Amino acid sequence: MLTFYHGPHTRSSRIVRLLIEMDILEQVDVRVVGLVRRGGEGAPDPANPHPEGKVPLLVHDGEMIRESNAIILYLTDLFDSPLGVPVGDPLRGPYLSWLAYYGNVMEPVLFCSFAGIDHPAMQATFRGLDEMYARLAEALTDRPYLLGDRFSAADLLLVSAFTFAPQLVPDIPAIRNWVDRCGDRPSTAKLEHFESRLTGNSAAE
Amino acid sequence: MLTFYHGPHTRSSRIVRLLIEMDILEQVDVRVVGLVRRGGEGAPDPANPHPEGKVPLLVHDGEMIRESNAIILYLTDLFDSPLGVPVGDPLRGPYLSWLAYYGNVMEPVLFCSFAGIDHPAMQATFRGLDEMYARLAEALTDRPYLLGDRFSAADLLLVSAFTFAPQLVPDIPAIRNWVDRCGDRPSTAKLEHFESRLTGNSAAE
Repeated sequence: MLTFYHGPHTRSSRIVRLLIEMDILEQVDVRVVGLVRRGGEGAPDPANPHPEGKVPLLVHDGEMIRESNAIILYLTDLFDSPLGVPVGDPLRGPYLSWLAYYGNVMEPVLFCSFAGIDHPAMQATFRGLDEMYARLAEALTDRPYLLGDRFSAADLLLVSAFTFAPQLVPDIPAIRNWVDRCGDRPSTAKLEHFESRLTGNSAAE
Repeated sequence: MLTFYHGPHTRSSRIVRLLIEMDILEQVDVRVVGLVRRGGEGAPDPANPHPEGKVPLLVHDGEMIRESNAIILYLTDLFDSPLGVPVGDPLRGPYLSWLAYYGNVMEPVLFCSFAGIDHPAMQATFRGLDEMYARLAEALTDRPYLLGDRFSAADLLLVSAFTFAPQLVPDIPAIRNWVDRCGDRPSTAKLEHFESRLTGNSAAE
């Protein structure tokens, strides 16, 4: 029994996109919960078992799985999906590395960029936007996706930062083309349709 | 063929501790590389293939695995170790969640605490020290380790923050006792012995 706690148009939307890409959305009980939104509106929802009232949260047979990259890995291992990379595959290491890199490096770097925090220790610990763009550009030069020819859940997670903040897409063709390539997938429209139904915005349907 | 790029007394030391705990240190070619150390001393080492000159870095049959939490998961899956939790185990979700939480939340929160960064967006995105301590205290109340009765690689990773910065251990018995419990393991002395040999500090042997 899989239950997913979701807030439309938040960080949890990328997990819904993964469920669509993996064609398992109907196997998951998606529950929309209230949230404290950007700007401070809203309130934590008692129906959300996450201890800090956050989304995404996945619950599988009573066990909570928190953090987007952990949830993505959990699902792609559980369902043995082509979106993931199984243990023993030569690409397992790069797959795990990109999922971890997103949370360990990209989120803090993007957060500091948004918040206007510029601190020398930041550069020493996490590096900055320039290094982040350099790593992505290296990976995407001569390859359509981070792991090679195939769109994976690593692409889905990392590109979500740029879908959320298109102004951060750098003027680097390898990265721009990858963002477009990921955006052109049918899951973009399917996610929008799903979210608009949840929020009752029939104009978007 | 596993090659591990290491800097003694850095974030990569916890991976050496994992190799010791898993009893696989002799199966790994550990190479000490030069680093830019805290304070700016030192230089990136051309012998280190990490694109930013960082450690830890694991290379397995030519594929690079970066980021401590990814390396830990990769190794505990590869060797099917009791330090890890295999796919399909009910504790797999909590195991992945703690590994991700370390990089996604603990490191940014501790970094901001060290650097004296206090920003309202920080609290909204990552939360703060109080929430981090609350999550650990909840998990460790009535249980000796994060996943229950057994020391796992999740304990090894998360406790490393407090080993590195003992002043951050809060005055919360469940957390203090867990830090002590993890520190009392034989791998603490074995790691110190290994590192002192690498740095030629025979006084510590």
